[in-house]
Amino acid sequence: MTADTPIKGPTSIVNALREVVGEANVLTSLNEAAAYLTDWTRQFSSEALAVVRPGSTDEVAEVVRICSAHNIAVVPQGGRTGLCGGGVPVAGDPSVIVSLTRMNAIRSLDETGRTVVAEAGVVLETLQDAALTNGLIFPLMFGAKGSCTIGGNLSTNAGGSNVVRYGTTRELCLGIEAVMPDGSVINALTGLRKDNTGYDLKDLLIGAEGTLGIITAAVFKLFPAPSARATVFLSAASLESAIAVLNRLQDHTGGGVEAFEYMPQPAVDVIRKVFPDIRSPLENPAETGILVEVASSRPADAEEMEDGSIRLNSDVMELLADCMEEGLVLDVMVAQSEQQRNDLWRMRESILEAITESGPAYHLDISLPLAQIAPYVNEMDAQMAQLGFQPLTVGHLGDGNLHYALSAAEGRVWEELPLEGAKQKVFALLTRLNGSFSAEHGIGQSKLPVMAALKEQTQLAAMHAIKRALDPSNTMNPGKLLPPV
Amino acid sequence: MTADTPIKGPTSIVNALREVVGEANVLTSLNEAAAYLTDWTRQFSSEALAVVRPGSTDEVAEVVRICSAHNIAVVPQGGRTGLCGGGVPVAGDPSVIVSLTRMNAIRSLDETGRTVVAEAGVVLETLQDAALTNGLIFPLMFGAKGSCTIGGNLSTNAGGSNVVRYGTTRELCLGIEAVMPDGSVINALTGLRKDNTGYDLKDLLIGAEGTLGIITAAVFKLFPAPSARATVFLSAASLESAIAVLNRLQDHTGGGVEAFEYMPQPAVDVIRKVFPDIRSPLENPAETGILVEVASSRPADAEEMEDGSIRLNSDVMELLADCMEEGLVLDVMVAQSEQQRNDLWRMRESILEAITESGPAYHLDISLPLAQIAPYVNEMDAQMAQLGFQPLTVGHLGDGNLHYALSAAEGRVWEELPLEGAKQKVFALLTRLNGSFSAEHGIGQSKLPVMAALKEQTQLAAMHAIKRALDPSNTMNPGKLLPPV
Repeated sequence: MTADTPIKGPTSIVNALREVVGEANVLTSLNEAAAYLTDWTRQFSSEALAVVRPGSTDEVAEVVRICSAHNIAVVPQGGRTGLCGGGVPVAGDPSVIVSLTRMNAIRSLDETGRTVVAEAGVVLETLQDAALTNGLIFPLMFGAKGSCTIGGNLSTNAGGSNVVRYGTTRELCLGIEAVMPDGSVINALTGLRKDNTGYDLKDLLIGAEGTLGIITAAVFKLFPAPSARATVFLSAASLESAIAVLNRLQDHTGGGVEAFEYMPQPAVDVIRKVFPDIRSPLENPAETGILVEVASSRPADAEEMEDGSIRLNSDVMELLADCMEEGLVLDVMVAQSEQQRNDLWRMRESILEAITESGPAYHLDISLPLAQIAPYVNEMDAQMAQLGFQPLTVGHLGDGNLHYALSAAEGRVWEELPLEGAKQKVFALLTRLNGSFSAEHGIGQSKLPVMAALKEQTQLAAMHAIKRALDPSNTMNPGKLLPPV
Repeated sequence: MTADTPIKGPTSIVNALREVVGEANVLTSLNEAAAYLTDWTRQFSSEALAVVRPGSTDEVAEVVRICSAHNIAVVPQGGRTGLCGGGVPVAGDPSVIVSLTRMNAIRSLDETGRTVVAEAGVVLETLQDAALTNGLIFPLMFGAKGSCTIGGNLSTNAGGSNVVRYGTTRELCLGIEAVMPDGSVINALTGLRKDNTGYDLKDLLIGAEGTLGIITAAVFKLFPAPSARATVFLSAASLESAIAVLNRLQDHTGGGVEAFEYMPQPAVDVIRKVFPDIRSPLENPAETGILVEVASSRPADAEEMEDGSIRLNSDVMELLADCMEEGLVLDVMVAQSEQQRNDLWRMRESILEAITESGPAYHLDISLPLAQIAPYVNEMDAQMAQLGFQPLTVGHLGDGNLHYALSAAEGRVWEELPLEGAKQKVFALLTRLNGSFSAEHGIGQSKLPVMAALKEQTQLAAMHAIKRALDPSNTMNPGKLLPPV
């Protein structure tokens, strides 16, 4: 196959697709389509009949109808920043990739109702900027914000750092427009806070990873922009102490904790090894390091700093002083400028790259009830050390989500380590403590085996029944999310 | 049929049910069962083979299996406080009522994770009290709190006065345990804030009014108890002004508005006619009266009053003074004691009874995007007056939910008024302005015609497909929520 050969497959379908979206928006040569065939992880890449880039909801619907009629798999695609391979075709299936990136309009923004209607292809950061221009925020926040799209965020129910205050994408979304597997369109962009008229189709499609239809647009809640913020790195006495501090902070600020990120010393060490210019926030090692951000839109909470920047007033500092006196907190570093705040967040956001650079690792995206976090981490860290692993853990501690990565301990060779046995221990304890094996990344292709092994059979059966009912020909993103029966 | 005759139907099924739940928990005489055959509205009453009161999830599952095997309708029932007839059998169907009231255990309360696991039969107020005992609140709040049950709240996705801050029942629930139509059980009482492992079955069952299964228990979020509160009755210059005040208050308090209730003068008048001891909060009539409650858990916000009670500090009062100066607010009455606060809330909660006592009325439970509330109310009030109606409207303005009731205008006779024409106008404008015809009460039996007329066909088709997939024998609460195809 040369770079100019059609990727694969029948000309008649490609011609039909061209009639719908225009010649320029059907990519069939490998040259043009290569970028769409793999994702950020580079673990999943495959082939497709074509990449189609519809420019409207009607075009999406028509494309879905054509593919359904020809029994061709439809693979909806956003910014390709997913971590489980949900946005690229499964090798072997004749597939059409439907890239939503041309549907990138912000259709309307309602300042009174504090809502915004955005199409699936809008980049998250673009939506954040549009909100800020109106004195509001769209609080979804994570590393991929500059390239991920709203449609992908919805389909994976993306989470990130601010879930502790504002919820996941699901909780931010008030309504959707979607193309169903038969090409019919659901128009539910209502922006209502209360609407009890039948089954909750919105939440069924959110997090369904494109297997039940294609979300083409959504209404989201917007929030008042904080007028002041405190960003703090603290060393907690233990994970239990950290969670006690979290609850104290929540009470004290009326739920103002925007981020509460776990950054223990081993994670800071690996970051500093790969990025030597990043400095440790505290002089002494922080076994239980926590990056905390508290914010408020209350004018009375804003205090001007020496460099002219605005910071949260001293309330929070007084509480942290109390926590130190009580022994819950060992040390605190308060960001004194926007620069120091950015440095702390740069450190937090460097961890995935740092681990990847440092050598092979197995990444977990788990969540636990808050009260089970400490027992879990303490027991797992000990067990993994015994097996020769160095756990490199960070996480959104405020919402119980840990990114728990296993790397080879100093002096150990990755290939010789008992990874399968380690996984079994990790998941066994997770199940025992009522945890989730996929907190915010979803299932895609990579987590199908663990989904098959750990998800309750009754729930899997209900999911399969729903999939068969809404997509009887199994056209929509097959081979994702649901393990084969 | 005498009071001691079995209600109806085959002895073999009744015997099988008795074996599962015990003789005392299968009611078959009209004497015993009468209360279960109707609900609070007294509009829906019918007959049943038996009322069964299971004491455990396993018993619920066994009851469902028996009914399914005999093709008998299962009608799950809570506190019978629903307003649309969802909890009583449809006349004519051979039905078994499954009352969840014996499953009333609070299984556990996690102070660290701030969650509680409650069974379906727990009365809402009981759950509120259990939370308060632990210094936390369960913020779901409405008039029926002393008799409605958690299971009914979930099945109807109940709303109420505090949704503006804490969300509906759906948003308060983190996980469920449920018996599916085939008698299998979903165990998902995990209490996780993030869990992306497949389709969102929890939200599918919430609000499904028992038509897809029976929720037997749930995990809920709890919140810090406010340490201080300000309760205010204000007269806004207009509905537009009221919504501007709402947004200003939200910014100013960091989202601390707990209730923002619309109480215009006609509603206050009808309350005072029926309950003469209730006093108008303000001297002058308030065309756009609003009952506002703002609360905070921040210690710094608490200020002791002369009578020893605690009130929110003066921040909010300063903002309201600004709003008066700008002409958004015409007058303000601040509750100076717990007694005055209770008086304001008693007034708010008397409205339904007052309307009912005053004469015939047609009740609507609608919601609109905030920006459409004023255009809607202004146009509808004018149109309804022209037709001879007096609208008696109250509502949870903060979340866009209006309880818009049509009564006969002074000097007009209800029976002679063009109700059907009025309904058509009400719904036509609602549809045009992207509103919902059932904000928080659900569909049940009474709203099936409007559901059939107004809900988008694509959405109805998807709902029917899901219902057929999960309940192929149509055993679970048939004749509710979904209009016949």
